[in-house]
Amino acid sequence: MKQLKNIVVGLLGFGNVGKGFAAVLEKNKAHIESTLGCGITIKKILVRNPDKYKDTIVPASLFTSNAEEILADPEIQIVIELIGGVQPACDYISKALQQGKHVVTANKAVIALHGKELFELADKHKVSIRYEASVGGGIPIIASLTKSLAANEIEEIVGIINGTTNYILTRMDQEGMSFQEALAEAQEKGFAEADPTSDIEGEDAAYKLSILTHVAFGVDINPREIPCVGIKQISEREIDFARQLGYKIKLLATVRKNGGSLDVHVHPALVPVEHPLAAVNNEFNALYVKGNAVGQLMLYGKGAGPLPTASAVWSDVLEMAKVIQNQIEETNTIKVKNGFKPGHISSGSNAYYIRLQVTDRPGVLGKIATSFGRNNVSLESVVQRGRGGKSVPLIFITHEAEWDKLEAALNEIKQLDTVEEVASILMVQSRS
Amino acid sequence: MKQLKNIVVGLLGFGNVGKGFAAVLEKNKAHIESTLGCGITIKKILVRNPDKYKDTIVPASLFTSNAEEILADPEIQIVIELIGGVQPACDYISKALQQGKHVVTANKAVIALHGKELFELADKHKVSIRYEASVGGGIPIIASLTKSLAANEIEEIVGIINGTTNYILTRMDQEGMSFQEALAEAQEKGFAEADPTSDIEGEDAAYKLSILTHVAFGVDINPREIPCVGIKQISEREIDFARQLGYKIKLLATVRKNGGSLDVHVHPALVPVEHPLAAVNNEFNALYVKGNAVGQLMLYGKGAGPLPTASAVWSDVLEMAKVIQNQIEETNTIKVKNGFKPGHISSGSNAYYIRLQVTDRPGVLGKIATSFGRNNVSLESVVQRGRGGKSVPLIFITHEAEWDKLEAALNEIKQLDTVEEVASILMVQSRS
Repeated sequence: MKQLKNIVVGLLGFGNVGKGFAAVLEKNKAHIESTLGCGITIKKILVRNPDKYKDTIVPASLFTSNAEEILADPEIQIVIELIGGVQPACDYISKALQQGKHVVTANKAVIALHGKELFELADKHKVSIRYEASVGGGIPIIASLTKSLAANEIEEIVGIINGTTNYILTRMDQEGMSFQEALAEAQEKGFAEADPTSDIEGEDAAYKLSILTHVAFGVDINPREIPCVGIKQISEREIDFARQLGYKIKLLATVRKNGGSLDVHVHPALVPVEHPLAAVNNEFNALYVKGNAVGQLMLYGKGAGPLPTASAVWSDVLEMAKVIQNQIEETNTIKVKNGFKPGHISSGSNAYYIRLQVTDRPGVLGKIATSFGRNNVSLESVVQRGRGGKSVPLIFITHEAEWDKLEAALNEIKQLDTVEEVASILMVQSRS
Repeated sequence: MKQLKNIVVGLLGFGNVGKGFAAVLEKNKAHIESTLGCGITIKKILVRNPDKYKDTIVPASLFTSNAEEILADPEIQIVIELIGGVQPACDYISKALQQGKHVVTANKAVIALHGKELFELADKHKVSIRYEASVGGGIPIIASLTKSLAANEIEEIVGIINGTTNYILTRMDQEGMSFQEALAEAQEKGFAEADPTSDIEGEDAAYKLSILTHVAFGVDINPREIPCVGIKQISEREIDFARQLGYKIKLLATVRKNGGSLDVHVHPALVPVEHPLAAVNNEFNALYVKGNAVGQLMLYGKGAGPLPTASAVWSDVLEMAKVIQNQIEETNTIKVKNGFKPGHISSGSNAYYIRLQVTDRPGVLGKIATSFGRNNVSLESVVQRGRGGKSVPLIFITHEAEWDKLEAALNEIKQLDTVEEVASILMVQSRS
């Protein structure tokens, strides 16, 4: 057994995740050092105002407001970026890599927007960069895709990767709350931010989906170009209709092989109750992956929170320690796999849930069904709820259809004088 | 980038998993070799009768009935054992390690019964042994425990790790089948063997649980000493009672930290419907893990089948290739973690579901409840089903209770002349 030297790390940021990282070390130090085969030391922590950190679980002397004390310290081998946001985090990461330091980050925005340059920079300087915590918090999705499923061609990833929206949708479903009530509760419990826009509009999920697309397919997609629909327009009534039909409504982030291109989108969808994603409730996240050897696999856990996120950061740090101890030279860039055309993004073929509000008059269903048929949209089921009222909901679930064809059908249907409104269009997740 | 030499492997066995291993290579060769950064060759395959393998997806010339052609070939770097059963598999693995070859195996029996010696042997000869496929098929549970959760102290693992019994219980629940009908269907569909004893008695799950206990806690437990109850005695009636109370019955393999010792058992249990394990149906497996940083994590997927199992074997082979390419010296033995006393096995405190058959007479409930109370077993709920008949079921769900106390209470209760039978005692999984 070779004698291993202490691992020395520097932290950028000491918010919730930074504190979680230090807390895990304090809690599990013996365990971590036994796994490492040596000691590990946090040498410095960058914060804006060191005076504010006199009473934390780490000595006050570790805090500095000068990034150079970490980035230029030759003793520090791993820089752990836990600031969040694009800048200055991205610059710090670049500098650390250029200084020949390995980097671990939990930063989805930096990896989604600047991952490619950073991976190339890491390769150039023969160091490694890891980002397990950037998607799914404590869920080991990056390790699973890059290692455990490494012999698989990935066919599909469908994720519930935003805890805020999943909490809101769960409460609306289970307690009959309105979107606003559920959001207020989520904010109260700390599952939603004061400004929840990025979560409820699906932007947060799109960032994470862009990282998953890179890791699984080697394809770089600007998260801002991912077709993205949030959950603001989902009413408790829609959730109720979905439940009656045997579905839960979830905000799904999907990337799916579609011949030589990829379908990528964030969209609220009806998930059949027997699908494992349907049982993912409250603030939990889950990633449902299909590989061409492993078949269906799902990873479920806490997608946020100081300790779960720190658990993922620690897994990267421990791997990185092995890289250092064994002087392993890793390749950080991921090549495009299976000849996908980068940039080709589509919504592909999907089954859809369509709710129309119609005037309850004889013949209305026939005309609508004819329009679907004329546009090659075939129907799996039709449900009419309510009766005799002036305006009744008419719900269709289609078989897999291309968006263009569905849109053409709906444009015809909107013209019918019995159709008051196309009240809702949602995707439907397939049963397996 | 250094120039990497081809990886050369030898296969022991060419049954379903062996064929799956070769099939994955054929399917995903470009992908696998791009991940490896070099080529990979199956040089020889050990089978009993090479003449039977003239028409497979690998050339007939690879097959040999002489193990030495693999174990003594200096060019073969990784020996992949896919024979199954204890012998001769265990001897072959020992010899391969002694020859300085790395070993990958999918063999639960060898690892559960002889893991400790083999890990020590691997350490002695400075090679590695991997066994991801031995538990949970394609589910990356070993990698998750040893790497992704490496900074966590594991508090609990609860697994549905036998696909046969889970298929049977699912069909009984969903279709109202009897145990015998569901077993016959499972056999017909290839989810149960002609002799299903090892699966339905829980022995298969106990082997896998012993491996999990080793990996998560560093504690070696003889699988034959794990308290183990199978599912033969579970009736469709019990499943129906459980459903009415909001539970699914699942065969759970559990290892749980209990102060300085471990509770380890395989036992059918009532799982609350809102628990993620309750949604694990048919032949699927799942591992629910609690770590002291990550919180709750669940991994779900196919626990058997040629391709899912081969996916796990491949993940080990690809990791091993990295070990070879970077000349990494790994430690295979796992030290006892957190001072657990090896060998201390108990059933710990559990909530229980008790079904009594009683004569429906005034005062019966009072006497029974008094006996529970006198033995410090407190009750969460009581349900009486049916009424007026001579014999009615009376169902109790207890709060967490030690087995000794419950047993004492039941011994008193059995003496009551209104109690005809203690018809069922099952564990109840906690809600989180």
